[in-house]
Amino acid sequence: MKASHRRRAILVSAAPIFNRRGFAGTSIADILEATALEKGGLYNHFASKEELAVAAFEYAFDEVQAYFRDALARRPSGYARLVAFIDAFEHYCERPVVAGGCPLANAALEADDALPFLRERVQAAFRDLRDAIVRDVRRAIEKHELRGVDDAESLSDLLIASLEGALLLTRAMRSRSHVRRVAQSLRVMLSGMRA
Amino acid sequence: MKASHRRRAILVSAAPIFNRRGFAGTSIADILEATALEKGGLYNHFASKEELAVAAFEYAFDEVQAYFRDALARRPSGYARLVAFIDAFEHYCERPVVAGGCPLANAALEADDALPFLRERVQAAFRDLRDAIVRDVRRAIEKHELRGVDDAESLSDLLIASLEGALLLTRAMRSRSHVRRVAQSLRVMLSGMRA
Repeated sequence: MKASHRRRAILVSAAPIFNRRGFAGTSIADILEATALEKGGLYNHFASKEELAVAAFEYAFDEVQAYFRDALARRPSGYARLVAFIDAFEHYCERPVVAGGCPLANAALEADDALPFLRERVQAAFRDLRDAIVRDVRRAIEKHELRGVDDAESLSDLLIASLEGALLLTRAMRSRSHVRRVAQSLRVMLSGMRA
Repeated sequence: MKASHRRRAILVSAAPIFNRRGFAGTSIADILEATALEKGGLYNHFASKEELAVAAFEYAFDEVQAYFRDALARRPSGYARLVAFIDAFEHYCERPVVAGGCPLANAALEADDALPFLRERVQAAFRDLRDAIVRDVRRAIEKHELRGVDDAESLSDLLIASLEGALLLTRAMRSRSHVRRVAQSLRVMLSGMRA
């Protein structure tokens, strides 16, 4: 196996462990057990637990992005893609792309106070997600698909916040009903803004 | 100092540590350092790290509840209290009641996979919060302050999810602009439903 393949195989095993247990809750011993590697074998690829955690977050975020890219493929930009995003997020809550829930939400709340080395990466990931939504809101306004929206950033923040918050509720309450209700409310809201 | 006072003093020190670093990121040594206690002194009050973490979460949630109770005091039930809740939550994001952000959000995302002993308490805390909002939405409907709301639970979930999600965005992006925009969108939305 080439080094790059071995590196990727480590991340495939490590990402769900970090995502479920958090950075502080994951030990190098957990990773060695999951990858069946010796310490030296792991350190050939990653110099420290921090470096491995950042790479595992990047890998998890890439998987999340690929999931949404697939779900939104062939949808025209603008209104149709916003609705497709809501549908895809509802499904994403119910069946996480990486075991343990949303890596952005998990890493955001662990990194905010405690993990400076991860914070910037989490911030960049949220920025990417938000930029994509802002683009589709702007496109929907340009295409005259939405009316009465004078602030694309506000609508984008409301969409992302309510969906990430619905995921939080769903995981805390162990019931999918919360994300279903929130997604439905957002669909009704967007449809009410339909020009 | 009475035992109950000593116990409370430990929780006052321990709650922000757990809230900032998470359960897995907090060691008994951290707690001993913050409280200037010996191990035996701490274990007189709490039999284990798990027991201390649950009590620290309860203490933190009590503080959060007291904050919202104060903020909503003297507001008539129904519409006025829903708007006051949005205002109070915006402020709560900007100045957490317990250092480290929202203990409900933090504990929810750490406990969901990894901390079964805490999960039920987090679930009960979210249920309390949600029940209070559902009551005010129902009251607003009864008082004919809101029209076109046929599902009080959906509106309540949307309010809680978007505010908790705004807190997540605000902490991830290190900018208060997100919670401000979301709170403003919710105020506009409620005012649009005003009968």
